[in-house]
Amino acid sequence: MEVTRTNFKDSLSTVYSAIEEADFLAIDGEFSGISDGPNVSALTNGLDTPEERYMKLKKHSMDFLLFQFGLCTFTYDQAESKYVIKTFNFYIFPKPFNRTSPDTKFICQSSSIDFLASQGFDFNKVFRHGIPYLNQEEEVQLREQYEERRSQSNGSGNPSYISPNPNKGPGSVPEEHREYIGRVVEKVESLFTTSEKTTGVLCDDIMGFQKERYIQISKVDDEERKRRERQKQEREQEELNDAVGFSRVIHAISKSGKLVVGHNMLLDVMHTIHQFYCVLPEYLLCFLRLLDTKLMATTQPFKELINITSLAELQKQLKESPFKSPKVVTAEGFPSYDTAQEQLHEAGYDAFITGLCFISMANYLGTFLTPPRAHIPSQSKLIQPFPKRDHVLYVTFPKEWKTSDLYQLFSAFGNIQVSWIDDTSAFVSLSQTDQVQIAMNTSRYAESYRIQTYAEYVQGRQQVRES
Amino acid sequence: MEVTRTNFKDSLSTVYSAIEEADFLAIDGEFSGISDGPNVSALTNGLDTPEERYMKLKKHSMDFLLFQFGLCTFTYDQAESKYVIKTFNFYIFPKPFNRTSPDTKFICQSSSIDFLASQGFDFNKVFRHGIPYLNQEEEVQLREQYEERRSQSNGSGNPSYISPNPNKGPGSVPEEHREYIGRVVEKVESLFTTSEKTTGVLCDDIMGFQKERYIQISKVDDEERKRRERQKQEREQEELNDAVGFSRVIHAISKSGKLVVGHNMLLDVMHTIHQFYCVLPEYLLCFLRLLDTKLMATTQPFKELINITSLAELQKQLKESPFKSPKVVTAEGFPSYDTAQEQLHEAGYDAFITGLCFISMANYLGTFLTPPRAHIPSQSKLIQPFPKRDHVLYVTFPKEWKTSDLYQLFSAFGNIQVSWIDDTSAFVSLSQTDQVQIAMNTSRYAESYRIQTYAEYVQGRQQVRES
Ligand SMILES: Nc1nc2c(ncn2[C@@H]2O[C@H](COP(=O)(O)OP(=O)(O)O)[C@@H](O)[C@H]2O)c(=O)[nH]1
Ligand SMILES: Nc1nc2c(ncn2[C@@H]2O[C@H](COP(=O)(O)OP(=O)(O)O)[C@@H](O)[C@H]2O)c(=O)[nH]1
Repeated sequence: MEVTRTNFKDSLSTVYSAIEEADFLAIDGEFSGISDGPNVSALTNGLDTPEERYMKLKKHSMDFLLFQFGLCTFTYDQAESKYVIKTFNFYIFPKPFNRTSPDTKFICQSSSIDFLASQGFDFNKVFRHGIPYLNQEEEVQLREQYEERRSQSNGSGNPSYISPNPNKGPGSVPEEHREYIGRVVEKVESLFTTSEKTTGVLCDDIMGFQKERYIQISKVDDEERKRRERQKQEREQEELNDAVGFSRVIHAISKSGKLVVGHNMLLDVMHTIHQFYCVLPEYLLCFLRLLDTKLMATTQPFKELINITSLAELQKQLKESPFKSPKVVTAEGFPSYDTAQEQLHEAGYDAFITGLCFISMANYLGTFLTPPRAHIPSQSKLIQPFPKRDHVLYVTFPKEWKTSDLYQLFSAFGNIQVSWIDDTSAFVSLSQTDQVQIAMNTSRYAESYRIQTYAEYVQGRQQVRES
Repeated sequence: MEVTRTNFKDSLSTVYSAIEEADFLAIDGEFSGISDGPNVSALTNGLDTPEERYMKLKKHSMDFLLFQFGLCTFTYDQAESKYVIKTFNFYIFPKPFNRTSPDTKFICQSSSIDFLASQGFDFNKVFRHGIPYLNQEEEVQLREQYEERRSQSNGSGNPSYISPNPNKGPGSVPEEHREYIGRVVEKVESLFTTSEKTTGVLCDDIMGFQKERYIQISKVDDEERKRRERQKQEREQEELNDAVGFSRVIHAISKSGKLVVGHNMLLDVMHTIHQFYCVLPEYLLCFLRLLDTKLMATTQPFKELINITSLAELQKQLKESPFKSPKVVTAEGFPSYDTAQEQLHEAGYDAFITGLCFISMANYLGTFLTPPRAHIPSQSKLIQPFPKRDHVLYVTFPKEWKTSDLYQLFSAFGNIQVSWIDDTSAFVSLSQTDQVQIAMNTSRYAESYRIQTYAEYVQGRQQVRES
C-alpha cells in the first residue's frame, strides 16, 4: 500500500492495527545518498567493527534524507501454517509546517539519485506528496509554541497582541490606514454597548487593491466562547498531530516492542532514530529489538551455506535446499508483490523480501531441534543470538565514575570496550563470552555498581514498556 | 523547447544557431535551494552592497544545484518591427559519467523544493533525464585521463595493463581460474603462429555461474589496427563531449559576447559560473555582458514609475502607459507561451518574461531621444549604464604590487574599492564618476602601471574574443 501525505491520516489506523497484530516487522529505507566522505562501499561494507562503522556513518551519512520507508508486517496464521503480510510504502518529506517551522536542508548524492532514478523511483511523489515529520525536540517546541499562544489569549484582563510569529510586537498603524482603523474602532465600541445577545458581525475590506483582507468581530456569550475555544484547541491538537506525521508510525513500532528485521540495517536504523526521534547518541546503542538478516546470514550455521549476502542473492539462495521458502499470503485489501517480477530497491518490496529471508533462516534453525520443528516463531530463543550480544554487560554506577574506573573494574578480563549510555550507565563488551558469568559472580556483593547481562537488561526494558 | 539528456545532442545545433543569430539573450535558473545559512529573503533582498551580497551568496548558496536553466533568444526582425523568440528549457543533473568521475553532492532546501513542487515542477525529469555537465577543471582532468590511457596503449614494446581505474595494477589470477586461463593463453599463442590474415575470434565463457563474461581476441593487420584506433579515438572524443554536456551551451553564450539579460540575476550568474566554469573568484567580477532588469527597474528613470520589482509585478506594470508591450512572435517550430496563462517559475518562461521587460524598458528610454525612437537595439549606448560601471577602472601593474600600493596610487581620490583579478590586475571603483577622467589623465605618462576605463576594458576583451 502506497502511503503519502494525501492518504496518511486515513491509513493510520490500518497501520497501527497491522503493527499491533504482527509477529514481527520488516523494514527498509531509501535515502538521498549514503556518504559525504569516504566512498559508499568503504563506508557500508568495510572491515570496520560495528562501533567503528556506527561512528563513520554518524559522521558521514546523517545529512542525507530518508525519503521512502518500507514496512512489511508478518502475522503467523497457526491454523493454516502460513504468514499473512501487509506491506506499506511510505513517502517522506519534511514539508515546512508553517513560517516558523524548521526549513530542513538535506544532501543528495548524484550516484545514489541516479541509481534510484534508473530503478524508476518516483521523486515527484516524495517532493509533492511526502508525509512530514518532527523529531521529539521539534514536537516539544511546537507544542510549547501552541501552549504559549493559548495562555496569552486566555490571559485575563490584559489582552495582548497575538501573532503567529512570537517575536513580533504590537503593529504600528501606517498613516494611510489611520482613518479606516478609526472607523472600525468606533464600530467595535458601539458593539460593546448594545445589549443584543446575537453574534454581531463586522466585515470590511481593508486594502482591496492589493489583497482582500477582512476583519471579523463577533460578540459572543460565555458559553459560546468556551465552545469556540474548545474547537480551536481541538484544531490545534490535530495540526500538531499532522506535523508529527510519519514519526507517529515510528513511535508505534517502538512502543510495540515487536522484533524488527532488516537487511544490513544499521544505516536504516540510524536514519530512523535521527530523523524521527533525536540526535544520535555518541555510541552504538539500540532501543529496538533488532535482527539483521545480513548479519544472520554471515553467522553459523548459515555462513557455510550462503556465499553472497546481498539481499537479492540471499533470497535466491534461500529458495534452494536445505532451505525452504515460507508460505506467505497477502492480507485482503493489500496489493501483493510478485516475487518473480523483482521490484528490488522499492523500500516496501525490500522489507517484504527481508522478512521472507528471515523466516527461511529461522525455520532452518528449527531443523536442528529434536524433534525438528518446521515453524520457529519470532519470539523463539533460537533467534536471539543475531546479532550476538551475549558478551555484553549492562553496568550502572555512581555519577562520578569515568571510563578509567570501568577499565579498572574489568582489568582482570583483558581487552574490553565501553559504550556510555548516560552519566550512570554503560555497556561493557568483554572479549570472551565465558567471562560474563565470572563478572556476574564477582559483582554479586558490590555496592557501588551493578551488573546485568544484556539479556536481563532487554527483558527489564520490555517489562517497563508493557506495564 | 524542452531539452533533456535524451534530445540534447540533437538539439545542440538549434541552440547554437539561436544564440548566434540573436540580438540578446535572457536567462533564468531554478535551484534546489537558496541558503544554508541566513534566511532566503535576508540573503537575496537585503540592503547589502553588490559586493557584500556576492560574498554571502558565495558562502551560503553554492552547494545547491542549478537544475533547470531557461534560455530565451530574442532576434529583431527589422522589416516587421518585431522580435522573434526561441525558448529553451534545459534540465540539468550531474549524472556520474563513469566509475572514476566526480560523485557530486548537493544540498536541497525543503522550503524551495516544496515551493517548486507546488508549482508542478517535474523533479523526475531532472533526476532521470537531466543533462550532465563538467566544469573546466573536470573537463581537463577527463581529457588527460583519456590521453594517458591512449599513450599507454600505444606504448610500443611494453604492453602494460590497461584498466578504467588508473590505480589498479595487473590482476593476479585466482587459483580456480588458473587452468582456464592457461587454456586461453594456449589458444592465443596458436593464433600468433598461423599465417591466416582473416580476423581470428576467440570467445569463451569465464565464470558462467555468476555472470557471463567473454574474452574476444582478434588478429588484425596494421591498416585495420589504425582504423580501429581512429574509431576508438572518435568514440572517446564523443564521450568527452557528452560528459561536458550542458557546459557547451554556456561556453557558446560566453563566446558569443551577446548581451545577457536576467532578473535579479546575481545568483543565476554565480551558479552558472560555479557549476559550468570554475571556482568562483574571491571578488565580484564578470566576464559576460550582463544586464539585470531588477537593477534597471530600480534606477532612473524607472525608479519613479515602478513600485514593485518582482518579475511578475514588473511585467504587469510594463504593460501599462507610459510603457508599451513589445511585438514578439515565437519562431516557427518552437512551442509558444501564453502570457495570459502564467507559467511563472519555469526557467524558460521566466527568461522569456525577463526579455520582454528589458525590451519595454529599453524602448521607453528611446522616447527621450530627439527625434524619439520606438525601437532601441540591445547594442545601444543608452542601455550600457545598467548596471553602472562608469566609475570602475581596470588597472594593470607589476607582480610585486599589493593592495596598499593601489590605495597609495589613488590616495587623492578618497574612498576607493579594490577587486583583484589576478597577480597583475584589478578593478578599482572610484567613489565619483567624474574622477575617472582625472585618473586617466594623470596616468598617461606612468610607466609601471596602466589604467583603462571599464568600457575600454570590455571592448578590448570583445576584440580578443572576435579575433
Ligand atoms: N551511489 C549508490 N547508491 C546506492 C546504490 N544502491 C543503493 N544506493 C543507495 O542506498 C540506498 C539504500 O538502497 P537499498 O536498495 O535499500 O539497498 P540495500 O542496502 O541493499 O537494502 C538507496 O536509497 C540509495 O540511496 C548504488 O549502487 N550506488
Ligand atoms: N524557500 C523558497 N525558495 C524559493 C521561493 N521562490 C523561489 N525559490 C527558490 O528560488 C529559485 C529561483 O526561483 P525563481 O522562480 O527563478 O525566482 P526569481 O528569483 O524571482 O526569478 C527556485 O528554483 C527555488 O529554489 C520561495 O518562496 N521560498
